[in-house]
Amino acid sequence: MRRLSTLAFSAATLVFGVSAVAAANRPKQDAAPVYGVTLPEGYRDWKLISVAHEAGKNNDIRAILGNDIAVKAYRENIRPFPDGAVIVRLAWQYQSSPRNDSVFPAPQSFVAGPPTNVQVSVKDSKRYAASNGWGYGQFENGVADQNVALTQSCYACHVKLDAIDKQADLVFTGYSK
Amino acid sequence: MRRLSTLAFSAATLVFGVSAVAAANRPKQDAAPVYGVTLPEGYRDWKLISVAHEAGKNNDIRAILGNDIAVKAYRENIRPFPDGAVIVRLAWQYQSSPRNDSVFPAPQSFVAGPPTNVQVSVKDSKRYAASNGWGYGQFENGVADQNVALTQSCYACHVKLDAIDKQADLVFTGYSK
Repeated sequence: MRRLSTLAFSAATLVFGVSAVAAANRPKQDAAPVYGVTLPEGYRDWKLISVAHEAGKNNDIRAILGNDIAVKAYRENIRPFPDGAVIVRLAWQYQSSPRNDSVFPAPQSFVAGPPTNVQVSVKDSKRYAASNGWGYGQFENGVADQNVALTQSCYACHVKLDAIDKQADLVFTGYSK
Repeated sequence: MRRLSTLAFSAATLVFGVSAVAAANRPKQDAAPVYGVTLPEGYRDWKLISVAHEAGKNNDIRAILGNDIAVKAYRENIRPFPDGAVIVRLAWQYQSSPRNDSVFPAPQSFVAGPPTNVQVSVKDSKRYAASNGWGYGQFENGVADQNVALTQSCYACHVKLDAIDKQADLVFTGYSK
């Protein structure tokens, strides 16, 4: 039986490759360091808050989605965000589209390429009191990035916004009607 | 009574301005020419398909949302799209964000400014048989644009895609995971 399992595993390894088997064995959802933030169930179905393009080192195009608590707060202009608000930022490589440009009147079309990472902001004024009520996490391929310095850099950047825009409650994105 | 109404109207005009009063009296939802497409109820809550940036004359940043039929077809890679699929493209002025850039390491942040227009594609293989099953409409501030030439240009452009990518079913946007 053991030998059969080993054979089956080897066959699977041959067919799907080592990384695919490793990915299948990895937990799909786990917690980011520092804040223990996890990737929320069903976030890809959440409502759109807005879109953006980050040039520079990121060079991505992004969508910002929110759970119902976050979207309600946005639409009713409630700040600070209430506990339970979760904002998810999805990003993809920023790519020109030769296919679209071959139809459009000029080279002008930039689209979402492969996904880069997903960043999650969770509002919990008690649990995350030390970071103005926000906990953060970054995920690649559904897996929490365990880099502590990276995770700490979320708050380090968001808190800078607080110095120039107190009303934002540390959130860069505004709601787009 | 008539005089009172006139007075009230004049007062409102003074307070809100002529255009605001005209907008309030205009129907919120009406049909685009050629195809009779209307702005779907609740489309702003629909699921995200993808995002894009159109440079050139449009110079917008956009989100493409779909109703459940469209999103299911995307996720299950079903083409042509089934009847009842509706795809909505929201677009906003493409703007740099001096606020974000003052916090970020370099000038790199481009965000959604004021909305430009919303374009709607409706799949109905019988009703829109003459345009490969798709009907189109463009809306500004929730009002259908009555420009016939503009509305006809939707299909004229989408059908060009069919010549180079038959699998696309005349839809430019792919689904972003």
